[in-house]
Amino acid sequence: MEENKPVEQSKSALKKAEKEAKKAAEKAAKAAKQATLPVVGSSGKKVDDIIGITSSKADNFAQWYQEVVLKAEMVEYYTEISGFYIMRPATMYIWNVIRKWFTEHIEAMGVDETNFPMFLSQKSLEKEKDHVEGFAPELAWVTKAGDKNLEVPVAVRPTSEAVMYPYYAKWIRSHRDLPFRLNQWNSVVRWEAKQTTPFLRAREFLWQEGHTAHLTEELAGKEVLEILELYAGVYEQLLAVPVVRGRKTENEKFAGGYYTTTVEGYIPSNGRGIQGATSHCLGQNFSKMFDITVEDPNEKGKHINVWQNSWGLSTRVIGVMVMIHGDDKGLVLPPRIAKVQTVLIPVGITKSTTPEDKAKHSDKFAAIKQTLKKAGVRVEDDLREGYTPAWKFNDWELKGVPLRLEFGPKDAAKEVVSFARRDTGEKGTIPLDDLATKVPELLETIQSDMYNKAEKAYREHRVIIKKWDDVLPALDAKNVVLIPFCLDGKCEDKIKELTTGRTDEDPNTPEAQKAPSMGMKSLCIPFEQPEGLVKGETKCLNPECERLAEQFVMFGRSY
Amino acid sequence: MEENKPVEQSKSALKKAEKEAKKAAEKAAKAAKQATLPVVGSSGKKVDDIIGITSSKADNFAQWYQEVVLKAEMVEYYTEISGFYIMRPATMYIWNVIRKWFTEHIEAMGVDETNFPMFLSQKSLEKEKDHVEGFAPELAWVTKAGDKNLEVPVAVRPTSEAVMYPYYAKWIRSHRDLPFRLNQWNSVVRWEAKQTTPFLRAREFLWQEGHTAHLTEELAGKEVLEILELYAGVYEQLLAVPVVRGRKTENEKFAGGYYTTTVEGYIPSNGRGIQGATSHCLGQNFSKMFDITVEDPNEKGKHINVWQNSWGLSTRVIGVMVMIHGDDKGLVLPPRIAKVQTVLIPVGITKSTTPEDKAKHSDKFAAIKQTLKKAGVRVEDDLREGYTPAWKFNDWELKGVPLRLEFGPKDAAKEVVSFARRDTGEKGTIPLDDLATKVPELLETIQSDMYNKAEKAYREHRVIIKKWDDVLPALDAKNVVLIPFCLDGKCEDKIKELTTGRTDEDPNTPEAQKAPSMGMKSLCIPFEQPEGLVKGETKCLNPECERLAEQFVMFGRSY
Repeated sequence: MEENKPVEQSKSALKKAEKEAKKAAEKAAKAAKQATLPVVGSSGKKVDDIIGITSSKADNFAQWYQEVVLKAEMVEYYTEISGFYIMRPATMYIWNVIRKWFTEHIEAMGVDETNFPMFLSQKSLEKEKDHVEGFAPELAWVTKAGDKNLEVPVAVRPTSEAVMYPYYAKWIRSHRDLPFRLNQWNSVVRWEAKQTTPFLRAREFLWQEGHTAHLTEELAGKEVLEILELYAGVYEQLLAVPVVRGRKTENEKFAGGYYTTTVEGYIPSNGRGIQGATSHCLGQNFSKMFDITVEDPNEKGKHINVWQNSWGLSTRVIGVMVMIHGDDKGLVLPPRIAKVQTVLIPVGITKSTTPEDKAKHSDKFAAIKQTLKKAGVRVEDDLREGYTPAWKFNDWELKGVPLRLEFGPKDAAKEVVSFARRDTGEKGTIPLDDLATKVPELLETIQSDMYNKAEKAYREHRVIIKKWDDVLPALDAKNVVLIPFCLDGKCEDKIKELTTGRTDEDPNTPEAQKAPSMGMKSLCIPFEQPEGLVKGETKCLNPECERLAEQFVMFGRSY
Repeated sequence: MEENKPVEQSKSALKKAEKEAKKAAEKAAKAAKQATLPVVGSSGKKVDDIIGITSSKADNFAQWYQEVVLKAEMVEYYTEISGFYIMRPATMYIWNVIRKWFTEHIEAMGVDETNFPMFLSQKSLEKEKDHVEGFAPELAWVTKAGDKNLEVPVAVRPTSEAVMYPYYAKWIRSHRDLPFRLNQWNSVVRWEAKQTTPFLRAREFLWQEGHTAHLTEELAGKEVLEILELYAGVYEQLLAVPVVRGRKTENEKFAGGYYTTTVEGYIPSNGRGIQGATSHCLGQNFSKMFDITVEDPNEKGKHINVWQNSWGLSTRVIGVMVMIHGDDKGLVLPPRIAKVQTVLIPVGITKSTTPEDKAKHSDKFAAIKQTLKKAGVRVEDDLREGYTPAWKFNDWELKGVPLRLEFGPKDAAKEVVSFARRDTGEKGTIPLDDLATKVPELLETIQSDMYNKAEKAYREHRVIIKKWDDVLPALDAKNVVLIPFCLDGKCEDKIKELTTGRTDEDPNTPEAQKAPSMGMKSLCIPFEQPEGLVKGETKCLNPECERLAEQFVMFGRSY
């Protein structure tokens, strides 16, 4: 399985972009180190200025993103070896929610868990020609153990087809063993030469990879779509991120596979498309190479090569979520995947508050927390001393907690708690008596509002284009485009070429400087096709192409 | 962290043992491939002979073990690269039960989950001298990416101290950040030159590794023991395996650590001890090397190096469980970790059964399954056609399912189901009306009986020895020994030497031929000390040692 590759850029542009990103990251890391966690010295004097996000999402998106993932303590750069990232607890919580949700769903489908070794031999890798060509440039080779050279070097898996399928040939012995479905959660290594970005493109990343075998193309195809729908569910139901379901073009499909289905996301800030997760039908290519056969249940003695699928979802999903929901205050988490859904902060307690009033307040405060816990809300209180409520507000906003609850003497007098939504900033009060129902409701409202906002942005920036001259202005206006397309691979290359290095934008804007030359590539052939394409009549949009259009295809600048 | 190393053997003996083990494994794998899953041909004729375990646990333990883990479909040999094993779903289910249980407990302690890269740089590795020396011979080095040599080779982590601690220095900035506790679930690589065995010694294995930092030695020490108790819980409560809690001697402690605590198991079949899991106090060694400090809360300006722990539990636990509970029919699983706790098999349905009776039986059968499911029992039925009940019995016994339930017309007439326990073979009946309570009770009885049986075997083979001449006969009688010992490292080496290559056993028995020369090593200094050691009086048991005994130490032949 492969993640999307960005459009080729000239080497010098790439170098420049890399350098800039690195500098930005270093700056952000330094700022984070100095500032994210304020230190209360032993003198008891607090350092009350939190240095939040210093970049603007609108003005310098790349740097903003790096600051957010660092300062919200989602990742740390692994400075020992470039291109690697440390996943911190804030990330692992989200990944585990996804893991649990997805595992429950595939278990119900009959998928079992397995764990294969991380290394593969040259021999098994070479069985499928397209596959090895797709991955060879990024393989990490172990050539030594201790101080001895290995007789035969081994590679760290970039994906496990070549690791697993020799055993599928052994284990699948009858059509009664089908469907045969295994999944594993692991990390894979792809030694990217390209610029790396936390979550989106790393030299090692966490994922799940499912590998299944079926008797017929139809059965395999049914599962491909079931899994794709689960991937869409991870995005839409958990991460509040809208996706477009579709099929990849031949140029963009998985190396060695038959066809690839995908969920494609969209980043409003820069108008780029981003591959969300892919579910591949491998056809019989691998089963022929690895000799995975069963006897035909309808014809004795006849052997059939099984139909195989593979499908993978990686920690990339978390990066997409950050990019879509975050703002200039930091991370914004959808409630369903937030470790802390609600933070409860005491306010209005001053030096003049009497000890009796303090104690009374404290009791009520504890009761509120207890009520929320009982209602199943993941709540934390922030009783840290030496910090102002305002400082605490900023700190929790930076970390993306969806709902802040404040409780002070004034609230107590009115028998309410005050709330502030992280996503909209909206403020209000909730009667104490209604907490157990209103807070969970509000969290669900936040979840769906976040999805709806992102869905609207995507919908409005998915534009149908029927004239070639409208393409570049649309891209510059941060759209992805749906164009009538012939589906020919060479034509697709040509479209990329024709749109590379050209922009109608002011070349002096930071955005234009970052990616002035990025051509558009095909993102997917959406299952849901726009109307207006007349078969045998509508031409492919590429002005240099003579062919007829087969389908609307979604193109865009992309990750 | 490191797993136990076996006593050195002469190279030729080792080669021979390796060859034999490999041959046995190949034979077992071949037998498994041919026989474990009987094929029903398209003609409908069944192949009704299951070839179960062909080796005897008593006569050829090593081969028996390899057959069991293969035929019960727990592992597969990864023939592409030697020393690696595939973990099949039967294994992953157990590992996930353990993972869930352990995660819940450490989360309650405040441990967060993290994920660090799998590679480490030479530079960070070299910071702690003893540590690098301990692991250097087994490091797998990546020297190439694609077809380019890396400027600086990187090693696959054998454990993550050197990967993680540079970041602890960055993240831990105040005593308020303590205790700082992270855990990760991953796989590590140790390119063993020694003979590998599924679960017990593999070149890659799954584990969890916890890494924590504390303000004081006392606080660190408290956690070391809390974690050790959780490790004991995994063995005793989940796997029904008894362990002895204790401390490692200086010779056997973790490379670079301060002290190591351990839970030690015992394999009755060959009388060997086996390290179960280790919880290390690293002291301040690593925090000094990696510069992890906080300001002393009691003395402004004074910096303290934090006290660190690391602790790990690996898939080895599953191998120990197999070795202890399995028998000549195959695997025997404790109910708490069995994916299928109870298999329900229809019996007594013959060609002469009328369709009406069949339908009636089928309805009742389904109702029984439903009742058990509702009662929280992990139950599966076996309705495969073309197999006799006897064949099914063998198949589920091979796979270790703790409880078999049979239901036929005779049972129906008496309003009972018949049962057979996997652990004891005991048979009986349960009234249909009592299923929902009696089956869960019976499963818990099986769980505790399995533990008690293993506990008795361990207790009876942990013998206190006070005369040197009694040592070898005790070892030959498959005991581990508790001896008064001076705790000196050189004396420990001497004891190993004095007991190596000597046995009072008939050298022609297979057991003696397998390990005729294995000396004994120290397993642990049990927390629970036998009586009878008089400080300042009792001598170290080693006849060549002049020192006084400090404590009783458990020694044994071991894995």
